[in-house]
Amino acid sequence: MLIDPRRIKHCRHCGTAVDYRVPDDDNRERAVCAGCGTIHYENPLNVVGTVPVWGEQVLLCKRAIEPRYGFWTLPAGFMELGETVAQGALRETTEEAGANIELEGLLTMLSVVRVGQVHLFYKARMLDTALDPGPETLEARLFHEHEVPWDEIAFRTVRETLQHFFACRRAGSAYPLHCGDI
Amino acid sequence: MLIDPRRIKHCRHCGTAVDYRVPDDDNRERAVCAGCGTIHYENPLNVVGTVPVWGEQVLLCKRAIEPRYGFWTLPAGFMELGETVAQGALRETTEEAGANIELEGLLTMLSVVRVGQVHLFYKARMLDTALDPGPETLEARLFHEHEVPWDEIAFRTVRETLQHFFACRRAGSAYPLHCGDI
Repeated sequence: MLIDPRRIKHCRHCGTAVDYRVPDDDNRERAVCAGCGTIHYENPLNVVGTVPVWGEQVLLCKRAIEPRYGFWTLPAGFMELGETVAQGALRETTEEAGANIELEGLLTMLSVVRVGQVHLFYKARMLDTALDPGPETLEARLFHEHEVPWDEIAFRTVRETLQHFFACRRAGSAYPLHCGDI
Repeated sequence: MLIDPRRIKHCRHCGTAVDYRVPDDDNRERAVCAGCGTIHYENPLNVVGTVPVWGEQVLLCKRAIEPRYGFWTLPAGFMELGETVAQGALRETTEEAGANIELEGLLTMLSVVRVGQVHLFYKARMLDTALDPGPETLEARLFHEHEVPWDEIAFRTVRETLQHFFACRRAGSAYPLHCGDI
């Protein structure tokens, strides 16, 4: 799902068709309204989620929606207005898995330039094994490292986050933030 | 600058007036086009920047633009499509201060819920003291901790980032990521 360049066709304020040009005091092309002059900015969005941990196992969710229907993912979704990064990660874990968790540290921050996203995953401690998958999830279950279905992981950021988690776990180290881009 | 709720009035695709309602398979009110059905999402944006360090000093920029004209800030600005978080932080440092830096670790991630933003600051090593402030900056200069104009800092996230930096520095510790919300 690549970003569609110039996907803004009309002004969100007055509905007039926009022109694409570099506004004064700017250095990038923006959608500028030919009527009222409103400048429309498009910027990357955050996808926020968790690695829920129970003992030696992590929680994965089988996707009930496209893209990647039927593939396994970590609970995550778009950060919404009105919440912090941490609140968004907690909300998505509740919505998608119904898991009861307590957030620990931020584990990965991965820029996905091609789609204009930043993926942020927290390590989280599961407080119990109760699960209640939401409508976007076919199934939620715990996996030991050797059980992880690596060939059926939905997204590269999920794979990289799981790899970082298990590498730290095996090393018996702390879980430092891993930054990268994909 | 609070977020204006319902600021989308017209569809970006076809220009028709939008309705605000909760789409099927969603749980939040969105601007939905009454003509073509396009759903418009609004999400938090990332502001990315650096704490440029030269010996015992940090680099601050005096703002030449509103909001907070004349107040001091760290080089930072909105992350753009087509770049990683790190590339955005580097770009803003070049644009606003003309400083030559090398990024080190991520120092703070601060959610600013009231305005729908996440502020991300890297610690950065200045490679020399050459500066070339851009049009958004009246002046760029280095400050020892005791010289920092705490009463003239433009934003709370900048203040908190500087406080975290100097606290780590005084403690002679590493510079762990500080997450928070404002």
